[in-house]
Formats: sequence, C-alpha cells, structure tokens
Amino acid sequence: MTDLHVYDTTLRDGAQQEGLNLSVADKLAIASHLDELGVGYIEGGWPGANPKDTEFFARAATDLRLRNATLAAFGATRRAGGRADTDPLVAALLASGAPVITLVAKSHTGHVERALRTTLEENLEMIRDTVSFLRAEGRRVFLDAEHFFDGYTTDRDYALEAVRVAAEAGAEVIALCDTNGGMLPDRVADVVHDVVGATGARIGIHCHNDTGCAVANSMAAVAAGATHVQGTVNGYGERTGNADLLTVVANLQLKKGIELLEPHRLQESTRIAHAIAEVTNVPPYSRQPYVGSSAFAHKAGLHASAIKVDPDLYQHMDPKHVGNDMRMLVSDMAGRASIELKSRELGFDLDPGDENDRATLARVLRSVKEKELRGYTFDAADASFELLLRRDIDGALPDFFDVESWRVITDARGDDDALSEATVKVRAAGERVVQTGEGNGPVNALDHALRLALSSAYPEISHLELIDYKVRILDAAHGTDAVTRVLIETSDGTTSWTTIGVAANILEASWDALVESMTYGLVRAGVAPR
Amino acid sequence: MTDLHVYDTTLRDGAQQEGLNLSVADKLAIASHLDELGVGYIEGGWPGANPKDTEFFARAATDLRLRNATLAAFGATRRAGGRADTDPLVAALLASGAPVITLVAKSHTGHVERALRTTLEENLEMIRDTVSFLRAEGRRVFLDAEHFFDGYTTDRDYALEAVRVAAEAGAEVIALCDTNGGMLPDRVADVVHDVVGATGARIGIHCHNDTGCAVANSMAAVAAGATHVQGTVNGYGERTGNADLLTVVANLQLKKGIELLEPHRLQESTRIAHAIAEVTNVPPYSRQPYVGSSAFAHKAGLHASAIKVDPDLYQHMDPKHVGNDMRMLVSDMAGRASIELKSRELGFDLDPGDENDRATLARVLRSVKEKELRGYTFDAADASFELLLRRDIDGALPDFFDVESWRVITDARGDDDALSEATVKVRAAGERVVQTGEGNGPVNALDHALRLALSSAYPEISHLELIDYKVRILDAAHGTDAVTRVLIETSDGTTSWTTIGVAANILEASWDALVESMTYGLVRAGVAPR
Repeated sequence: MTDLHVYDTTLRDGAQQEGLNLSVADKLAIASHLDELGVGYIEGGWPGANPKDTEFFARAATDLRLRNATLAAFGATRRAGGRADTDPLVAALLASGAPVITLVAKSHTGHVERALRTTLEENLEMIRDTVSFLRAEGRRVFLDAEHFFDGYTTDRDYALEAVRVAAEAGAEVIALCDTNGGMLPDRVADVVHDVVGATGARIGIHCHNDTGCAVANSMAAVAAGATHVQGTVNGYGERTGNADLLTVVANLQLKKGIELLEPHRLQESTRIAHAIAEVTNVPPYSRQPYVGSSAFAHKAGLHASAIKVDPDLYQHMDPKHVGNDMRMLVSDMAGRASIELKSRELGFDLDPGDENDRATLARVLRSVKEKELRGYTFDAADASFELLLRRDIDGALPDFFDVESWRVITDARGDDDALSEATVKVRAAGERVVQTGEGNGPVNALDHALRLALSSAYPEISHLELIDYKVRILDAAHGTDAVTRVLIETSDGTTSWTTIGVAANILEASWDALVESMTYGLVRAGVAPR
Repeated sequence: MTDLHVYDTTLRDGAQQEGLNLSVADKLAIASHLDELGVGYIEGGWPGANPKDTEFFARAATDLRLRNATLAAFGATRRAGGRADTDPLVAALLASGAPVITLVAKSHTGHVERALRTTLEENLEMIRDTVSFLRAEGRRVFLDAEHFFDGYTTDRDYALEAVRVAAEAGAEVIALCDTNGGMLPDRVADVVHDVVGATGARIGIHCHNDTGCAVANSMAAVAAGATHVQGTVNGYGERTGNADLLTVVANLQLKKGIELLEPHRLQESTRIAHAIAEVTNVPPYSRQPYVGSSAFAHKAGLHASAIKVDPDLYQHMDPKHVGNDMRMLVSDMAGRASIELKSRELGFDLDPGDENDRATLARVLRSVKEKELRGYTFDAADASFELLLRRDIDGALPDFFDVESWRVITDARGDDDALSEATVKVRAAGERVVQTGEGNGPVNALDHALRLALSSAYPEISHLELIDYKVRILDAAHGTDAVTRVLIETSDGTTSWTTIGVAANILEASWDALVESMTYGLVRAGVAPR
C-alpha cells in the first residue's frame, strides 16, 4: 500500500452542492460508508462555524467506530489581529476532538487584500500562529491553500511563502486548492512540480470540475509529486462539483498501479456510491465513470456479437474490480447475439446450438424488433424485456391476474386543481375485484386503484413504490395523435426496475407500464399465482 | 479562426446513450441547433445500416439549410473479400449525398482477427480500397481508427500502418478513437505525438469518458498535434458518454486562446445545450461545466459578500462568454434586460427610462421568475411569454372566454384500445356552452371539446391545428407525484407557436397549454372579444 492520502471532503465541500442538505444522521451514515470503503481521511465539517457540524463531531466521538479512516475537522486560521490561543473558532476546532485539523488559509494576494482585508504579512502570521498552536495542542494539521493556483499566477513568491510558512510551523500536508476550478492538467502539473521542488513540503491537491478536468487535474498533480488527494463521493460539490474521489482512486489504482484501497474494498465502490446517493437523495448519475449504472452498458448490435467472442475487446477494464457489471442493452440495433447475452444475464441460458433455444431466441428477436418499430425501447426497460422473454419461454411467466377494465376520470372547476379518480376491475385469486383510487393525476389514481384491487390476493405488492415516470411523445408530427411512450421505474425498497408502455393514448400506455411493473414485482418476489 | 475541426457526433455516437432514442424529426432539430452553434461538421448517422438514418440524410437534403456546418455520413469500410464499388453499404454512403464520409476502420490487430475475423493485410486493403473509391467518387473522407490506443499498445507498427494506408489513399483526417475510453491524458499525449511524427497525417481525436478524462484527453491530443476534435453535445454517448464538445470547445477557446467558434456563437452554448436537452428529453445535468445551471451558482455564505466586492475572485471566467449567468438558478434564466429585449421583439417597446414601463418590466420579471420556479420555461414557449407580457400591460390581452369546468374520461375494456371523452363548459360571447369531444387520448379529446365549445363564438380557431405535444416530468424523484410540464405547438397554417402548462396533474397542465394556445391564436388573428 502507498502512503498517498485519500482524503474525502464529501461531508464538508461536497455538502456545498446546490440542493444537497445533510442532517447529522445523514453525515454519520455517509461517514460509515466512507470508512467501509477504506478512505484514509474523512473531513466531517466545520465545527464552531456550523452547529450541525459541531454536533456531528460530538456524536461521531460516541456513535462512530471508524476502522480505517481518521476524522478531520475543517476550519479557518485565526482572525486577523487576534491570537490563535484565544480565538473561539480555533477553540471549537480543538473541542471537536478530531485528530486531524484542516485549516483553510489564503495564499492569493488579491484574496488577502480584497476579501480578507488584511496585510500580506499578517496573513502569513495567522497561518504560522494557528498551525503552531494546534500542533502544540497535539493535533495533526493539514492546510488547504485556498485559490492557490490563481494566487501562484498573481504572485508566485507570496504563494510559495504561504506554503513554506505552513510547513515550517508544522503543517503535515499543504493541499493546493483550485478553488474556482479553472485549471487544466498541464498547468496543474507545472505548478505542483514547482511547489514541490521549491518548498520541499508534502503537497496535496484539491480540484473542482469547472473545466471538466477535476479528475485529470488530480491525476496530473499526483504525477507531479502530490501525495495527498482530496475529493468527494459522486463528485458532489458547489457549481460543477469536486473531483470524484472514486474515479480518481480507480484511475490511480487500476491504471497507474498505485494501491490506495485493498482490492476487496475497491470492489465495494459501486455499491457504496449508490448507498451514499440514497442518503443524499441525489439521483445517481448513470454515466458516472466506473460506478454508474451505464458505465459498462453496451447498446450497439455490432459490438454485441464481438463481445460474445471476447468481452475484453469492448471494455477498458473488468467491471468486477469496482463491483460493477457489464450490461447488454436490447435495442433496435440489437442482434440475436445481444438477446442471447441479455437472456443469460437474466438467468435464462439459451443455447444457440439447441434447436428449441434457437427458435426461442428467434421469436424473442422478432417480437423485440416488432415492438421497437411501434416505439418500444427495451434498452431503457429491462423488466419489460424480461417479461417479454418469459412470455416466450414455456411456464416462465405465471398468470397472476386478468384485467377486465379500467376507467379514469379527471375534472376541474374554475381555478381549482384538477382531481383524478380511477376505477379498475380485475380477476385475481379467482375473485373479481372492483376498486377505486384517487390521485393528483390520472396515473397516480390508476396506480392507487390497481394496488387496492390486487392487495388482497397479493399483499406483496403493497411495499412496491413507483419512483420515476417518464413520458415521450413519438412521431410528434401528429400532435396529440402521436404515439406515447411511458417508462415507469418501480422500487421494492432494495432494487428498482423499469417497465414500458406504448400506445396512442397516454393513459393506456401508462396503464400498460403499471401492469407490467406490478407483474414484474410479483415475478421478482417469487410469488406463485393465486 | 483556427482550422482545427470541431466535429459533432451527437446524432450518431451520442445516440448510443442508454435510453436515448431520436426520431428523424429530433435529429433534424438537433442538427439545426448544432449549425447555429457553429460546429464545423455534423455526423448525421449511418445511412444504409439504419433506415432511420437513411431517411435523415434524405430529409436533410431538402429540409435542412446548413449555414456553417458540413454534413458527414458515418459507415464502415467495405466487407472483407469484397469490393468497395460493389459493396451495398458503401453505396448507401454515397447515396446519402453527404459531402464528407467518415469511415470506421480497425487498427487493432486483436479486433481485426477476433472481431472482424479477417487477415491483417485484408483489413488494410479494405481501408485502401474504400477510401480510394469514395475519393474517386468526389467525396471528402475522414477515417475513425477504432480502438486505436489499445491497438497501438498491442502492435504499434500495425496501428501506424493503418493510419498511413488511410492517409495515402486520400483520407483527409484520421481520428484516433479511444473506443473503450480507458485512456488517461499522459498516454494520449504520447501516442498522438508519436503518430503525428511517424505518419505526417492530419490526426483527429475521439474520446469517451470512462476514466472521467474525455475532456482532458481531447485537450492533451490537441496539445500533442491533433487538429480535429470529435465530441457530443452534453457528453451524450454509450456507457459514460463521449467527450462533451461544448466543454472542450470552451476550454480550447477561453483557456487556450484557440478560436473555434465566433464569440457570439459561443455565447449561445448554454441556450443551445438546454434546447438540445429538450429534444433528447434527457434532463440537463446541473453540474455540467460551463453550461450547467449550477456551473456558476454560488451557495450563499462565506463567498456571497466577497462576490459583490469582486466577482472575478470567485469565478474562473466570466459566464457571459458561454451565455451562462453567475446568479442563474435552474429556474431563473431571465434577466430584466432579456425581458426588455424580448418585449421589443414582440412589438412592445418598454423603455426602462420610463417609470410605468420600468414598473411593468419589474412586474413581468417577477412573474417570470415565480413561474419558472414552478417549472415553467419560457425559452421554449414564446406564445405563453407574450400572453404573460400582455396580462401585465393594460388592455393588451382581451378576455375572449371563461372556463367554467372541464372533465375527461378515459376507459378501456379487456384488450380494446382505450377511448377518451371530454366535456368542457365555457362562457363565450355571453353564452354558456357545454360541449363534448372524443379522442384517442385525453388531450386529443380535450382539444376537440374546447374547439367545439369555442367554434360558434370564434370560428377563426377552426383552422388552428395542434402539431406538437411534449411532456416533461420535472423533479421525477416523486414518480407520478412529480410536476408535469407540457409544451404544445399550434399552427394556423402559415406560422406556429408554442404554449406551456405546468401542474401536478398532467391533464391539467395539458389543458392550460391548450387554453393558452387557443387564446394566442385569437390574439394572433387580431380577433376582438365577442
């Protein structure tokens, strides 16, 4: 294992993201996930400046048993003209009990004079005084040199002096921050190389993604001599976000051979990235490198046949190293090969050598192509594809219930909000059931009515939740006469699946997708028809 | 202006993205946006391999008037053992009429032998033969060297030979593709530098984002001598997506001083990125560099006050260069100036010097912001904006009719198609009218019923036709509880206009947009209220 620091600031800088709001409980949950992943340092927040963060450190001391990570408290150097040993904010950092204290300090003359409004000399004194005081109190000290790269461009000597002062006062690491995120890799490499040579200090890197280069900038800094990398899970952060720590770690470990996490922990990164997304309630980004749900998904039919021959021809690394999976997307570009692979992925081993299996594959391919001509898109609806497959395999799809009819009424009076009411009539478990449901929209009402109607025969569906609903009008040239495609994502609490409906009538398309999602939920739960 | 090629492949490689499914009309709409942005080349698809793409090129020839861009057709080299002049797929490329033909070819020995299943020599012959044939037919030819970087690692000599053969046969550009997306910038720089030196060919770069470095890899290739950059708008593409062309262009132009787009076009990139997202129906990524809604959004706090002192201390560049806004929020695109301009454009000359006009502008800005917070987007709905403006200008919007109530019923029995029936009650020309309309969908039925109800008072609306209907679920985290945005485009035979409705209930949103579209139609026709 290398001694390069993996320093996570999801709980502090990541929490700056627009719309992201973490409770103390959220922060504790994320911290345990990060510890399980095996990061070296977890920056918990700014105790003293933010009551929530003060509480986080208090509860972390009792509730959080960290096995791998060291907790870091973030805070500023003491105020201008004051003293570190009497500065209340510095005292709050000590009171947090965090073994590592990361001080943010100015290294940009413009920021010292125009934002901090003090002298260049006093700013250096604030660094010297605060670092020495905390070291004397027995804490490890890291320093975040804010706006370092812009500061270096404005006044190289002063920027370097700030680094030297911090190092001489006992700061273990000085992290150079591209606070405004405007840097590109070549510049980051030059500056880091110069700072390492000119100061001899241990240098870290903290990047933002404003040029789309946060990951590459972090890689460039490490190549130039940085031995401490900061980032956030899922690249959370202000504006365009921070460097995605999981991507940086995977690149360094799998592409550069720098072992930062034990391999069995790196294999947890996909699961942990999604678990943390559940806590932050920020929908996971499907195109996220390494851990995204699409990161190893293949669509093009021309690839699929070759992938059968040799998967390594079409993936840059084996997804199992990060706990992700190769997925075949069935689409109108798909050939028999991708259907065969997809079926195998779903646990149906159809052997093209076997005559019956070959016939099944051909049937499935026909219905996929026929349905996609009518507007279906199975690459976005795995569950509907599995149901289609099961319908073509004898006994693979039980007949759970029959729909006799459904009706939905929506009305509005004057300026009042519209109300929707749905009535469905189904046969399940030998009973004919008629149920009515209300909703703030017609699909919502149909969803409620269908659940009510099925709940007595299949209580299993009660905990299914409709979590996403997408509508696309196809062939829109005909306006409301166009065909409508509806995609519904349903969750059973642990996993989720997407079903599809296509019809001229948007409510019919929605109804079909709803029925598919309930049916798939019952298949998934291994329920026998009643 | 540099002669570096900006080559967009949104319509071909971008369309490989999971869940992204473009109609021919979508592709034509995106192509005009790209042309307006000023890209040099638009790769439209693979005519011959995909009927939809064949139709795209046919319709592009008549419907698409490109001012800046050149259209490129993508396709493969002729099949092994065949001849280019008799290969049906090569013929389809010629038939597309595209002035540029981009051939994908193998340069990786493993892919030639295991995927293409032919000899290394025959693969080179396929390149030579196909390029020469297309050149002889008077087309410009670009070549995408698939899996080039992996191929170079496996067998440098063969990879270089493939480039030489293509160049000697007349290929203008050989684009080196990191097809599996596993490269990092340092490696890309080394390889491109070597290829440029060893072959003397004009080299292009095509990157995917599997290591989170697609943008940085493209930048590194240009620094190493590549003079042709491929990418997609919003980084659409298979797996983790392609290099985000807008980010690459902004980086090269604003950070490296390479002028790729006229500055006034670069200033359209934020608007165009969002307009294209409306077509693809892929929700815009708020953290997207340069054009994302959060890209220049600062969370209140530590920064806010200092930003007032000196914005440049806290942003890496002035957002106006890409048409973005530091204060811009997802829901808040409009500034007073743009409203003033828009009003003038609509024939309302509101003078900010005049007190009443200033008050009107402030009122309009308030209602725009308030409505956009609720999910309205007036960029896409000019007619609704004009109605909003008229409501704030005395006497500018007559009261044509009042809606008392509306109701729509949709039902289906067994496997029959669903039927919708709508009843609306309105007051127009002093009369109370109750009318019922049927349709193959609820919106269709509401449209018919509303026309019937208004036709006696306003026969002018009879010739209005609803020509497009778009639905977008906002805040999809709540599934069917989410807010729905409906855009309706209506035509009077000579021109068309778009109106918007936003509500929790999809039918209420649709109804609001329908009422707006009829109202605007009456304003447009200069009808007096009856």
